[in-house]
Amino acid sequence: MRILVVGATGKVGAAVTEALEARHEVLRASLTRSALTVNLADPGSIRRLYAEVGRVDAVVCAAGQAAFGPFLALSDAEFALGLSNKLMGQVNLVRFGVEVVADDGSFTLTTGLLSRHPTPGGAAISMVNAGLEGFVRAAASELPRGIRINAVAPGPVREPIPAVVGQTYIQAVEDRITGQVLDIAANAG
Amino acid sequence: MRILVVGATGKVGAAVTEALEARHEVLRASLTRSALTVNLADPGSIRRLYAEVGRVDAVVCAAGQAAFGPFLALSDAEFALGLSNKLMGQVNLVRFGVEVVADDGSFTLTTGLLSRHPTPGGAAISMVNAGLEGFVRAAASELPRGIRINAVAPGPVREPIPAVVGQTYIQAVEDRITGQVLDIAANAG
Repeated sequence: MRILVVGATGKVGAAVTEALEARHEVLRASLTRSALTVNLADPGSIRRLYAEVGRVDAVVCAAGQAAFGPFLALSDAEFALGLSNKLMGQVNLVRFGVEVVADDGSFTLTTGLLSRHPTPGGAAISMVNAGLEGFVRAAASELPRGIRINAVAPGPVREPIPAVVGQTYIQAVEDRITGQVLDIAANAG
Repeated sequence: MRILVVGATGKVGAAVTEALEARHEVLRASLTRSALTVNLADPGSIRRLYAEVGRVDAVVCAAGQAAFGPFLALSDAEFALGLSNKLMGQVNLVRFGVEVVADDGSFTLTTGLLSRHPTPGGAAISMVNAGLEGFVRAAASELPRGIRINAVAPGPVREPIPAVVGQTYIQAVEDRITGQVLDIAANAG
């Protein structure tokens, strides 16, 4: 398959890219450090990325910023960051990417632990992750041409990134599953 | 108790207000049709509402707009409506309202069926509702002074609004529960 990885230079993204490259052609995109660049918070930037990339079989996103901190101490801008970047940025990757994804292709997005395991200081991120998961569950039934959508919750980002992280993204890309949230902490448990 | 109801003139809000008034002092707010007005999408409007209202024991929100429709047909503005109004509008009611809510007071927000029962055409609303529920679950552990937070999913809005709707909001206001999503469709079984 020809696979676009957004956030390819991050810790999770690099591990995912390495795992995918063993069996697929991977196109790397990131905010600044790849041949392809994209700013998730900017819809125009996402549209330009897809125009440059052309047809792909899968889109994997391991990018997305959101602010961590006690929610009563977060600013309006910190709340907006998670909504415009990690949440709508990934939703827009799907909205604008449907045109370029092949029949029976897929989107694999990245959520996190905090939607299902609330932690003090994590309310804004819980909001973003839970919203993304709600979107994934519902969007699965609206995508055309056999296109699938799933989200991976990669668990705590500690180096070295465990092999199960790459394997779980591969599972989302290759298996006939859709509308699922693949929780690595649960898988590894 | 002295209770602020936002969205008091909507179908659900009117039913909730009527149920609460049998045992509490209720202050009505809505976009245009109440003595108190507030635009959920405008943080400044929410701050002005609280400045006018002063100390309350509970805030109940039965307002919040979001766009329904196949997500691939929704515009950027339709996605933004749900995020700025139903999601961040209610989150901001909590962020800015903590100062005016009494010790052991509460926030009761409104979510919907679509976070847990995905329906084609409901992906944007599923995103908003699930995000709100993720926030409620996590914010419960960050609120000070015994303040509680819950969300009610009022189910399909058919008139007459069933009595269980008002009762469920009363339960969220009066019972010692927090971080809960009270699903009326599930309650009504």
